[in-house]
Amino acid sequence: MRSSQTFHPPTRLLLGPGPSNADDRVLRAMSAPVVGYFDPVMLEIMADIQRLLQLVFGTAHKAFPISGTGTSGMEAALANLLEPGEPVAIGVNGFFGDRMRQVAERAGARPVVMEAEWGRPIEAEQVEDAFKREAGLQVVALVHAETSTGVLQPLEEIHEIVRSHDAFLLLDAVTSLGGHPVEVDRHGVDLCYSGTQKALSAPPGLAPIAVSPRTAARIRARRHPVQSFYLDLALFEQYWGTAKFYHHTPPVSFYYALLEALRIVEEEGLQARFDRHRQNQAALVAGLEAMGLQMHVAPAHRLWTLTTVRIPEAANDAAVRRRLLTEFGIEIGGGLGALLGKVWRIGLMGKNACPANVLLFLTALERVLQAEGVPCGSGTRAADHIYRKAGSPA
Amino acid sequence: MRSSQTFHPPTRLLLGPGPSNADDRVLRAMSAPVVGYFDPVMLEIMADIQRLLQLVFGTAHKAFPISGTGTSGMEAALANLLEPGEPVAIGVNGFFGDRMRQVAERAGARPVVMEAEWGRPIEAEQVEDAFKREAGLQVVALVHAETSTGVLQPLEEIHEIVRSHDAFLLLDAVTSLGGHPVEVDRHGVDLCYSGTQKALSAPPGLAPIAVSPRTAARIRARRHPVQSFYLDLALFEQYWGTAKFYHHTPPVSFYYALLEALRIVEEEGLQARFDRHRQNQAALVAGLEAMGLQMHVAPAHRLWTLTTVRIPEAANDAAVRRRLLTEFGIEIGGGLGALLGKVWRIGLMGKNACPANVLLFLTALERVLQAEGVPCGSGTRAADHIYRKAGSPA
Repeated sequence: MRSSQTFHPPTRLLLGPGPSNADDRVLRAMSAPVVGYFDPVMLEIMADIQRLLQLVFGTAHKAFPISGTGTSGMEAALANLLEPGEPVAIGVNGFFGDRMRQVAERAGARPVVMEAEWGRPIEAEQVEDAFKREAGLQVVALVHAETSTGVLQPLEEIHEIVRSHDAFLLLDAVTSLGGHPVEVDRHGVDLCYSGTQKALSAPPGLAPIAVSPRTAARIRARRHPVQSFYLDLALFEQYWGTAKFYHHTPPVSFYYALLEALRIVEEEGLQARFDRHRQNQAALVAGLEAMGLQMHVAPAHRLWTLTTVRIPEAANDAAVRRRLLTEFGIEIGGGLGALLGKVWRIGLMGKNACPANVLLFLTALERVLQAEGVPCGSGTRAADHIYRKAGSPA
Repeated sequence: MRSSQTFHPPTRLLLGPGPSNADDRVLRAMSAPVVGYFDPVMLEIMADIQRLLQLVFGTAHKAFPISGTGTSGMEAALANLLEPGEPVAIGVNGFFGDRMRQVAERAGARPVVMEAEWGRPIEAEQVEDAFKREAGLQVVALVHAETSTGVLQPLEEIHEIVRSHDAFLLLDAVTSLGGHPVEVDRHGVDLCYSGTQKALSAPPGLAPIAVSPRTAARIRARRHPVQSFYLDLALFEQYWGTAKFYHHTPPVSFYYALLEALRIVEEEGLQARFDRHRQNQAALVAGLEAMGLQMHVAPAHRLWTLTTVRIPEAANDAAVRRRLLTEFGIEIGGGLGALLGKVWRIGLMGKNACPANVLLFLTALERVLQAEGVPCGSGTRAADHIYRKAGSPA
């Protein structure tokens, strides 16, 4: 009947907040034959994934992927660490901090909100203050890379405060892992989760998580069972640990994808990868500023993986994004929540963080803005200047 | 460094309880470029998935995939339909019925267990009795195809009973969807979930679910929010419905896989597909019986997709399975829970339900049993006889 029809989604350049483009090697790895979840080969794959996740998380803790997208990692982290009725200090300075609050509430916990403007990090004093407000506070949850605002959360002071109270630090690294240093051990992070579809250049579908021994002990000592069976970290550990108990049928093909993505990270080297992200974002910002656009986040707090730029007064948000997609095949993101209609979100994540993409995007945006009657300068020369200074191939 | 190393999982013949082999077309579809979750192309893909899921679920209800494996579908169904403290009648005649009980308990509900031997279906009288035991009972949950025992649950009488009490019927169709008729509308099923890695011949990673309008209304009218944000069906519907709100980054590549798998089902035709599953299972059983092995389930209640056969006294369970895997590349399943060490589970699911696989498996099992010193006859002739009677290509 329709067997001659083949399946051809278009090739987009995904420069939004994620998913970003998956590496071709990763896509090919996914098309390998499925094996069973106790196959000896599977056990080797799992061991490799664990080792490489430890590398990108900067940790010696157990690390494995939750079988769902980033939000499942958030829910697994909060629902396993928190007991019903327990206070948890949550940094809310964007859409995903607020999502943490909602998820914690559904888990029956009591969020103690530390708020900041959407575009600013949470201050160390706010964390200190949360401990003063809540005598029994044992858990602090923060978003390392706020995908809705483009803010990188500094952790140097905060982790000292959390440690001094002998509390647990929970970190959302969805948009930082693989693009920014995520230093689980150095920053005393007890539970850190991420996604695969951002700076790791794999498709969405898994949530890597790193679990400290004291977190595992705390979960084992829970008074109430974790409300989610599917996201119960102790059951995950029975499959990922030495016991090898069946928990659920894992998404085998995504394990292949994640492994290949992590191997690419290892081949490049973490420092080289971070430098690449930093440099390309610097070029993007130089270009956008040369065009006359304004950054939403102050230089000290900008993510390398995701840049928020204010939408010019004269521009029609939806029309510009539609033109970028239809005329150039480029997807960027609009604003979320408080930033809806106010910013564009431009991701340079994983393999997408390269001079060719930055220069193409700047050119495309310039042409689209001009076609829409929005006055702007040219950005490519300023971007290129950054590359030349750094001696990059562009 | 290691970029010349390529990724080569072995090609196994997965004749266990799942995952089964994914169709090659499905694996190729997965390697297509990732698109964004609001891409116009994505919206077309989602519309096609909905239509084809309605076809295999036999329903006009809304149908979409949950972003997790089958167990996430189970949890989504129970956690959304049940309020804390509410009674729910659950058929426990195997590992997955018992898992339903655990998941319902974690959701704060109060399971009213209807038990049957592992290898027997739940009787209609037990359902009638549950309504007598619990005056306020509004939800009955059953496993349509018990993957741990190989039993198909009859629904004719039971759905009349549930309907007569104006209650909700929740059905686990993980191992039946795409291999057996799953008649959501005819059987008045209010909430039905499945997985992709069994008779649909896609990789594990999604849980298709069909939600009746009265279920959706009940969920909207909940007194307590669903405890899981990730598995909140109302939030899924906002993305899958006309609103198109962001809930989480969906596993795009698995949407490609599911769509291609469903297109293959449509091309073959449902009835032809069911006939194929029935016929190949009949040949498998004829062969196993000719070898002198005993079926665990009575003929009237056997699944076509998964056959449980008793392990001969003289056979070493693990050794036989290991030899099948290492010498023939064939994976079959051992027993779970009450059937651990007592049965083998042989799946003929989706594309794997074909004469070549049945005949190869019977030959391989015969040789392995003989090598292990277990006396047995030959099964291929009896299997072939079934095919000849049916005029099949074998």
